[in-house]
Amino acid sequence: MEISCKETAAFLQKAEDILILCHRNPDGDTIGSGSGLCRALRQMGKRARILVNDPIPRKMLKMAEGLDGGFLPKTIVSVDIADEQLFGEALAPYLGKVDLAIDHHPSNTHFAQRVFLDPSAAATTELIFLIIRELDIPLLPEIADCLYTGLITDSGCFAYSNTTPRSHRIAADLIEAGCSYKQINKLFFETKSLSVMAAEREALNSLEFHFDGRVALLFISLEMMERTGVMESELDGISAIPRKIEGVEIGITIKERGKNEYKISLRTGESVDACAICKNFGGGGHARAAGCTIEGSLDEAKTLILGAAGQALEELK
Amino acid sequence: MEISCKETAAFLQKAEDILILCHRNPDGDTIGSGSGLCRALRQMGKRARILVNDPIPRKMLKMAEGLDGGFLPKTIVSVDIADEQLFGEALAPYLGKVDLAIDHHPSNTHFAQRVFLDPSAAATTELIFLIIRELDIPLLPEIADCLYTGLITDSGCFAYSNTTPRSHRIAADLIEAGCSYKQINKLFFETKSLSVMAAEREALNSLEFHFDGRVALLFISLEMMERTGVMESELDGISAIPRKIEGVEIGITIKERGKNEYKISLRTGESVDACAICKNFGGGGHARAAGCTIEGSLDEAKTLILGAAGQALEELK
Repeated sequence: MEISCKETAAFLQKAEDILILCHRNPDGDTIGSGSGLCRALRQMGKRARILVNDPIPRKMLKMAEGLDGGFLPKTIVSVDIADEQLFGEALAPYLGKVDLAIDHHPSNTHFAQRVFLDPSAAATTELIFLIIRELDIPLLPEIADCLYTGLITDSGCFAYSNTTPRSHRIAADLIEAGCSYKQINKLFFETKSLSVMAAEREALNSLEFHFDGRVALLFISLEMMERTGVMESELDGISAIPRKIEGVEIGITIKERGKNEYKISLRTGESVDACAICKNFGGGGHARAAGCTIEGSLDEAKTLILGAAGQALEELK
Repeated sequence: MEISCKETAAFLQKAEDILILCHRNPDGDTIGSGSGLCRALRQMGKRARILVNDPIPRKMLKMAEGLDGGFLPKTIVSVDIADEQLFGEALAPYLGKVDLAIDHHPSNTHFAQRVFLDPSAAATTELIFLIIRELDIPLLPEIADCLYTGLITDSGCFAYSNTTPRSHRIAADLIEAGCSYKQINKLFFETKSLSVMAAEREALNSLEFHFDGRVALLFISLEMMERTGVMESELDGISAIPRKIEGVEIGITIKERGKNEYKISLRTGESVDACAICKNFGGGGHARAAGCTIEGSLDEAKTLILGAAGQALEELK
C-alpha cells in the first residue's frame, strides 16, 4: 500500500522499537537515510537502530556512529531499498516482515506493507527530510549532515539530471540547520588519495580510441594497482573517465583481475544500452553503467568487448 | 561608492545605451553575468551589448550569441571584474570610465564610480539574479541559462565552500524559470574535450610535491598547449587538480604565458589564504582560489611561488 508523507509521519509517531534496514553495498543515501531517520526517532524518545549487511565505507562511518544496539524490534522500516534482493544475509530474518519502506527507486517492488515512494526525489534523504518536517521535530546538525550526504552522493552534488528545485531548497534548509556541508563536499568530491591520483595518471596513459572516437578504452593492470596502492573500490571515478570525453558514446575500462581474467566496466551516453552489451558476456547493470567479466588473454578480452561495442554502434544506424 | 541592489536596479532603470564589460580570459561567471544582464536590459527595451578582450570559450558562445553590436555607449557597466588590470586591450578605452561595477570579489579595487559588491555571493550571477528580481522583469529561460552557468562554474556545481543557502535557492528558482540545467551540467561537468583530456594527462605527469606533500604543483607549457590544442580557458578544471589530492593544502598550477611570463593559479584548503599569497606578486582573487603573474624564468617563478606558499604554511604554526 502506498502511503503519503503525512501518513508515514503518523505511522512513525506511533511506532516503537524501530529497526531501520539499509541496503547491501551501502552508499551515502541508504546510510544517510537510515542514520538521519534513526537519530530523529531517538530524539523523539524512541528506541531505534540501523542494520546493514556489509561494512560501512570509511567516509560514512561518522553518520552511523552509535546507531547499532541490541533491543528486539517491534517495527521494521527499510530505507532506499528497492527490492528484498538487496537485503543480504544479515537482513534475511526480516524478509517479508517490513512494515514501512521509504524509497525513491521507481523499480521498488512493493515488498513492504506500506511504502512511501517518491521517484521524483533525487535521494531517499529528501523524503526523510520531508518526514522530519512533518513530525515537527528540530533538525539537529548531525541529522542535517546525514540527509545532506545522501542528497549529494545520489545527485552527483546536484549535477545529475535527477536534481530538482526541491533538492536545492532542501539543501539550503540543511545548510541553515547547521550541516557541515563544506567538510562533507570536500570528503566526497574534493579529495583524491595519492594512490588514486597516481592510478589515474597511469590509466590515462593507456587511453585508446576506437570507431572514430566513439569508443574510448582504459586499461588498469594488477601490477599498476599494486604499485600505486589503489584499492578496487576506489576505481569507480576512473571508470567514469573515458565516457566523459567529447564524442565518446561508449567508455570502457578493463581491469585485470587475475591470470586471464578481466573485469569490464561500461559507461554509455543516452543512445547505447550498456547493460545489453554486458549481457553478451554474462554481466548486467543499468542502461548507462554496467559490467561483466571476460576470461582469456587481454587481447581477446579487448577484441570481444570492442566487437560488442562496435556492433551496438552499428545497430544505431 | 558602494551601492545596494536596490540602488543598482534604480541606476540601470534609468541607464541608456549600456556597454557591459567582461574580464579577460573570460569564465562562465563573467560571460553568464554579462550575457544575462544584457538580455535583461534588452528585454526592458534598452540598447545593450557586451565586450570581452579574448575569444569566448566554445562552451559559452551560446550565452553571448548576438550580444555584440555597434552603438556608442552612454553607460559602462563591468561584471565580475575585480581590477582594471583584467580589462585587456579591447577594453582599454574604458579605463577609469566605468559607471557601475557588479562584482563578488572581496579584492575589488573600487575602480568604478559605483560598485554593487557582495563577497558572500558564490558567483556574480547571483547578484545579477537579485538585480533582475529587483527590476521586476520576467526571468526568461535564456537569461536563467546564463545565470545558472555562472553559478555552477564559480561554485564547482555547489561543491565549493563559497556555496550558500542563497546559492541553492537561486538555483531552484532558475530551474523553475526553465533553464536547461541538465544540458548545462553535462556540458560543464560531464564532458571533456580530447585536447583537455590530453592536456590533463600531460599535466599530471608534471605533478610535484613540496613541503611534506602539503603543496602540490603542476606545470603547463605553451608547447604542450599548442601540441594538445587545449585553450587557456579550458585549463580551469586542471588548475583544480593539485588541491584535491589528499593532504594537499596549497595547489599550484603554473601556466607558461610567453617568454619569461608565468600565470600562477592557486587553490587552497580552509587554512591558507590564496589571495594573500597572490597579492605578494600583484595578483588577487578569492580566499580559496586566486591568481597572479610572475615574470622571470620558470625556475624563478617556481621558487618565488613555492617560497610564498611555504611561508604561508609556516605562519599557520
